[in-house]
Amino acid sequence: MSAGTVYGLGLGPGDPDLMTVRADRLLRKAEHVAYFRKAGRKGQARQIVDRMIPEDAVEYPMEYPVTTEIPFTDPAYNQMLAAFYEDCTAHLSDLAKGGRDVVVLCEGDPFFYGSFMHLYTRLKDDVPVEVVPAITGMSGAWTATGTPITWGDDVLTVLMGTLPEAELATRMAQTDALVVMKIGRNIDKVRRALRQAGRYNQAWLVEYASMPGQTVTRLAEASDKVTPYFSIIVVHGQGRRP
Amino acid sequence: MSAGTVYGLGLGPGDPDLMTVRADRLLRKAEHVAYFRKAGRKGQARQIVDRMIPEDAVEYPMEYPVTTEIPFTDPAYNQMLAAFYEDCTAHLSDLAKGGRDVVVLCEGDPFFYGSFMHLYTRLKDDVPVEVVPAITGMSGAWTATGTPITWGDDVLTVLMGTLPEAELATRMAQTDALVVMKIGRNIDKVRRALRQAGRYNQAWLVEYASMPGQTVTRLAEASDKVTPYFSIIVVHGQGRRP
Repeated sequence: MSAGTVYGLGLGPGDPDLMTVRADRLLRKAEHVAYFRKAGRKGQARQIVDRMIPEDAVEYPMEYPVTTEIPFTDPAYNQMLAAFYEDCTAHLSDLAKGGRDVVVLCEGDPFFYGSFMHLYTRLKDDVPVEVVPAITGMSGAWTATGTPITWGDDVLTVLMGTLPEAELATRMAQTDALVVMKIGRNIDKVRRALRQAGRYNQAWLVEYASMPGQTVTRLAEASDKVTPYFSIIVVHGQGRRP
Repeated sequence: MSAGTVYGLGLGPGDPDLMTVRADRLLRKAEHVAYFRKAGRKGQARQIVDRMIPEDAVEYPMEYPVTTEIPFTDPAYNQMLAAFYEDCTAHLSDLAKGGRDVVVLCEGDPFFYGSFMHLYTRLKDDVPVEVVPAITGMSGAWTATGTPITWGDDVLTVLMGTLPEAELATRMAQTDALVVMKIGRNIDKVRRALRQAGRYNQAWLVEYASMPGQTVTRLAEASDKVTPYFSIIVVHGQGRRP
């Protein structure tokens, strides 16, 4: 019996119409579907494919062991996550070795800050693994603003809101175009950094890009409510344009 | 009669299987198809959709007026390009006002260093325009390397090979993950900048990502032959990974 393949299947920003033809095809014939989710939640990735996967597909929800946020710097956090990824890997590896193809649902593009990468590096020398790229969440966000993100020689910098404030501010000041991800509870720090960098008034906040609840707001006009973790901040480049 | 829509249709990195479901659908029923190309060439974007668009679709190739490269800083270059974009805009606007939908083929993601943006800004207040995002060429490139581009808090910087060498070197040294586009005749300058930044040995050269001629080579082992304009250099981030 030949081994099955584990597909790291990028779903794109959230609109099923923005999935690739390949992802769409693989989903509609999937027999085993795995996805990450927080305990007690349905899972964002699972929700996106709700009416796409076959009814009799076997599902394997991979529930994160950490419900309250432990600082990333805590070694216990890394240990817990590593053990969790090992468990998931063992299960997916068993399925593949049993000849089954498995589709792992990945929000956005799997190799771009994705969770699947932690499984990928553990699986890739063990069983066949294939990554299906997808539209990044940030691409969904800048498309939603209705304004191009980069022109000509513009430099684009992508920053995580989890970085220290001073580093954020320095890097924000030095780039032409800017994307900030992982906003969530870092929103106040990100706002302060943008102000220090003199970019605050050029910043747009995009929530739920390409999805039913999509909003696009100037950050300066956005309320102080906590924004979802998958909000994205965009500052457009202003490069050369004939 | 209601106006038609001009679609800025992202084609992704080149593999038709990596187009979005929406792009695929719009292409297969397209009646008017426009695309940029160099004079005397078939055009890369047109080639990608070769067996997809209806045989009786009306094609509108938009041929760049500049065949030999004039420096971007030359005002004559900008004037010539501006006049060219105005001509294209007038034609697309006429079609839309005549009630026709037009699909404009865009390599990669339209809002990410794309040529369509020059038409978009001129058309958007005149006729209905819709942008269909797509997988970026860089996403195709890092997927081709088989290694994730960014982990945890990694900073990603995207640079154009057209930037001055000193600026390239400084920015290459300051980032975690790196993408360099518009390589072509800038390859020697880009190599020197990577060496100065101490990143040369981590750099990968990807040519024709996701297309039949795809190659993935360590830059240090790549020959000195001139690489196609759409080659992409990738340096992977090494961020936190439990």
